[in-house]
Amino acid sequence: MKKYFPILTWAPNYSRTTFEADLVAAVIVTIMLIPQSLAYALLAGLPPEVGLYASIIPLVAYAVFGTSRALAVGPVAVVSLMTAASVGELAAKGTPEYLGAAIVLAFLSGIFLLAMGVLRLGFISSFLSHPVISGFISASGILIAASQIKHLLGVQANGKTLPDIVASLIASLDQINLLTLMTGIGATAFLFWSRKGLKPLLKAKGVSDRLSGLALRAAPVTAVVATILLSWGFDFAGLGVRIVGEVPRGLPVPSLPPFDLRLWHELALPALLISVVGYVETISVAQTLAAKRRQRIDPDQELVALGASNIGSALSGGFPVTGGFARSVVNFDAGAETPAAGAFTAIGMATATLVLTPALYFLPQATLAATIVVAVLSLVDLRAIRRTYVYSPSDAAAMIATIVVTLLFGVETGISAGVGLSILLHLWRSSRPHYAIMGQVPGTEHFRNILRHRVVTTPEVLSIRVDESLWFPNARFLEDTISDQVAANPDLRHVVLNCPAINFIDASALEALEAINERLRDAGVYLHLSEVKGPVMDRLVRSDLITHMTGNVYLTHVDALARLAPELTSQTLRQNRTETAR
Amino acid sequence: MKKYFPILTWAPNYSRTTFEADLVAAVIVTIMLIPQSLAYALLAGLPPEVGLYASIIPLVAYAVFGTSRALAVGPVAVVSLMTAASVGELAAKGTPEYLGAAIVLAFLSGIFLLAMGVLRLGFISSFLSHPVISGFISASGILIAASQIKHLLGVQANGKTLPDIVASLIASLDQINLLTLMTGIGATAFLFWSRKGLKPLLKAKGVSDRLSGLALRAAPVTAVVATILLSWGFDFAGLGVRIVGEVPRGLPVPSLPPFDLRLWHELALPALLISVVGYVETISVAQTLAAKRRQRIDPDQELVALGASNIGSALSGGFPVTGGFARSVVNFDAGAETPAAGAFTAIGMATATLVLTPALYFLPQATLAATIVVAVLSLVDLRAIRRTYVYSPSDAAAMIATIVVTLLFGVETGISAGVGLSILLHLWRSSRPHYAIMGQVPGTEHFRNILRHRVVTTPEVLSIRVDESLWFPNARFLEDTISDQVAANPDLRHVVLNCPAINFIDASALEALEAINERLRDAGVYLHLSEVKGPVMDRLVRSDLITHMTGNVYLTHVDALARLAPELTSQTLRQNRTETAR
Repeated sequence: MKKYFPILTWAPNYSRTTFEADLVAAVIVTIMLIPQSLAYALLAGLPPEVGLYASIIPLVAYAVFGTSRALAVGPVAVVSLMTAASVGELAAKGTPEYLGAAIVLAFLSGIFLLAMGVLRLGFISSFLSHPVISGFISASGILIAASQIKHLLGVQANGKTLPDIVASLIASLDQINLLTLMTGIGATAFLFWSRKGLKPLLKAKGVSDRLSGLALRAAPVTAVVATILLSWGFDFAGLGVRIVGEVPRGLPVPSLPPFDLRLWHELALPALLISVVGYVETISVAQTLAAKRRQRIDPDQELVALGASNIGSALSGGFPVTGGFARSVVNFDAGAETPAAGAFTAIGMATATLVLTPALYFLPQATLAATIVVAVLSLVDLRAIRRTYVYSPSDAAAMIATIVVTLLFGVETGISAGVGLSILLHLWRSSRPHYAIMGQVPGTEHFRNILRHRVVTTPEVLSIRVDESLWFPNARFLEDTISDQVAANPDLRHVVLNCPAINFIDASALEALEAINERLRDAGVYLHLSEVKGPVMDRLVRSDLITHMTGNVYLTHVDALARLAPELTSQTLRQNRTETAR
Repeated sequence: MKKYFPILTWAPNYSRTTFEADLVAAVIVTIMLIPQSLAYALLAGLPPEVGLYASIIPLVAYAVFGTSRALAVGPVAVVSLMTAASVGELAAKGTPEYLGAAIVLAFLSGIFLLAMGVLRLGFISSFLSHPVISGFISASGILIAASQIKHLLGVQANGKTLPDIVASLIASLDQINLLTLMTGIGATAFLFWSRKGLKPLLKAKGVSDRLSGLALRAAPVTAVVATILLSWGFDFAGLGVRIVGEVPRGLPVPSLPPFDLRLWHELALPALLISVVGYVETISVAQTLAAKRRQRIDPDQELVALGASNIGSALSGGFPVTGGFARSVVNFDAGAETPAAGAFTAIGMATATLVLTPALYFLPQATLAATIVVAVLSLVDLRAIRRTYVYSPSDAAAMIATIVVTLLFGVETGISAGVGLSILLHLWRSSRPHYAIMGQVPGTEHFRNILRHRVVTTPEVLSIRVDESLWFPNARFLEDTISDQVAANPDLRHVVLNCPAINFIDASALEALEAINERLRDAGVYLHLSEVKGPVMDRLVRSDLITHMTGNVYLTHVDALARLAPELTSQTLRQNRTETAR
């Protein structure tokens, strides 16, 4: 029970001091979340109130099901962009169908996450390697920033790929609205400055660390309030500045997502991709924060919690949500001790929805765009390419390919290409296991790689050690390698496969071993095994391999050689030994 | 040069005796291939001459590019069924568009194979695990046999899935043509009998092994000749028996595949699947036969050769081809010594196309269907399910799922599901590496799994050995495992990762280690490494991990423990030691 409802582990001991800590964190996160939720709704192509709705019920759901004490869920930039990309294919922005599709996307994503959690399929997130995820996030950050430039300039433009967006912007440069541009540039400059310069300034004036940190978090809200006042006072709307306009007042009304099988079918793959991307980001921040206080999170239960949050979002008219990085760190730093902080944030957001919406009428869209641009540019980490390249050029190549495909063909193609590349790279590596042809270290019972050590071998016995488990990606490699060795060594009579590093042999590799055994038999060569681990041997005896095998299984490799090439240790042969320099 | 044109390795030394051996093999294979090529064209939904065309140029191409001395390429059952399934989606049987699509499929498949060969991407075939391939082949055999029943009954029926085929057959039972049924049953019974009973009978009559083997190979041709004679003598066509009819006489005319970008786009995925399935089958038979004579084949060059064969097939109006299992074994047994045997077979097939086509006019389709049914039933190996289950239930589950999906949803969905399942199963296994929490064997410098040995540990140091390379599928697992251990052991001050089994750390795992290091630091725990292999260390020093790492790298694990927990070996603590029973 406690496993599926982690709230039961902390709620019974909830104390007054914990409550106070959670409440302070909730206030700070709420201040941060109001402009973010509006901005990410704008990014997703949805009405602003949808962003607010997605920041209420999902937070309550996470508080019930989540295992991280500090994770703050809600709309995030990359997932909002992915929502816009997939929903935009199916409906026109601003239509009820568009909103309906976004709701279905949240619902399906929730179902997938929930199913993965209950079926313990969290490993599906390993479809994505870190460099690919990092490249995808960087490219998404660039795309998001580019897509917001139109709001900063006050022009009409569109496009889902970098070339399209740039072309569209250039074509519309003549429509620039100067007042919008000034608002946009002003808000962006203020937000950038507050990130870099505000804290040192306040510190120099003797303001406490805590308070100056709070001021930093409140900078976006300050920009919002200031531009609302300006917009109201000087009638920005009358001067051609696009404003948010009427935002419906009141809490979201519970409703079911539209049931349209074709729509569900078309959104299934995007929902899966959004789930995986969202989960990978969430789990990484949740684990980092939990470690700081030596707390545990349960990765499978996190899937359940994110699933419940997304279903909650869909049922209250919201769009896909996930754990936000910056927001969770703020929540943690502000002292949140339990997921109740999230529930209190939800109350704050609900209050904002009831009370503040009339005030949002005059908010310039350029302010929201500035919030987005400043937030996402921290996602872009192109230096990671170089860092990865130095360590692993093939990983860097996958990263660059993901970035290029995402920028040129959009997020859906980008993340799909990333998944494909990750799997391809993994299969490529798995298909080439590390192995060594071994010889005996003279005068000892040890066997070592003939390429690295001075060792003794005999042309009649091939000693080969494979340093990975055997399974289908490397089954063919093993067949090829042994075939080559047999074809290259006409005197060969015995092959001894040294197995101390083999933890697992799957059914494909078993068949490969059977095929190798038969082929060696046809060529007049015996196959032996040595140093097979206990659990591996337990499985092998359930197969036909051991009974069909032409040779034997030896406890140690030296036993095998003592039996198969006793002359190797004799004085005569030692003089004819093959010595290979290190 | 010899690498890409293996013909250069054997042609210069071509001798009279080799010529004679190849010629005999070619005659036998030709006798076998004539009915097969007609039958598989029928199975693919194509006119019979297309089967003949696909058995000429591809064989010559393979003779030039192939590295296997005995492989016989041409139309095969499973690939023909896959051709029918994918082309049938795009055009109606019997139309020029249908033929055009089949030609494009061969062409694209050739291009893919060639590209994979040149780019050394043979590892792509590891997308398919053996159990999945075996399940797919069995299910295809059942589907093929079921699809031929209509020809044996003389009724009209269709369907691409088992339920559809069965329903369609049942609905058409009233149209059964008795004479067709008799021909079909007679031919099937004769072919089955010849497989089981002919050889013993001939042997009992004192016929030599070689000759009775030849008689066995000639059984399908005998059935063809006999039924042609019956059909001609008794006017089967007039009695409602469907006959092959007019087959254009003459060699195929070289031509380019239709260039229709939409068609190419739609056939790309089927062509890739056909390429992979065909390659996997080919390489396995080629390697088996090569091993019998201790010859080498080059898996990448085989891709080139199959690619050239398919492009050759397309340019001469044929459909996708690959190495046939039964045919290659016959070729080998008949004594083929070089790929020239294939070229001679091509001459035989060309002669047949020029001379024998008028004789095929009266051939009942039921005879061809009987040939197919008898040939494919040997592909069906349902006992493999049990065999696999005993060894590995999860592999057996993947196999059963592939069979069920193929039977219920057709070959394309079946093989796609198989690929997906193989990858999923692989990722699942890769995501759970074998690892051990270790303790020191008292009085020695050895460290062993605390679950299996009586060992000494200290609550301040966690010794963990991972027995696989670290890469993205298991990066998260490592993070989770160490997080859990840290959260569970409040006294923990040091984590020592013992790395003798780690051959590779990819960029994802490196980031995971960096994250682990940071999280441990936040929790006041030091991270150390021990027994890192040389090549792994060479790469690690190119990253930031070693400089950022809170702990040290130790040459041996006992060094680490001697430094971190010197009291562990002292007499006092030895009495308080944690002993874990085996």
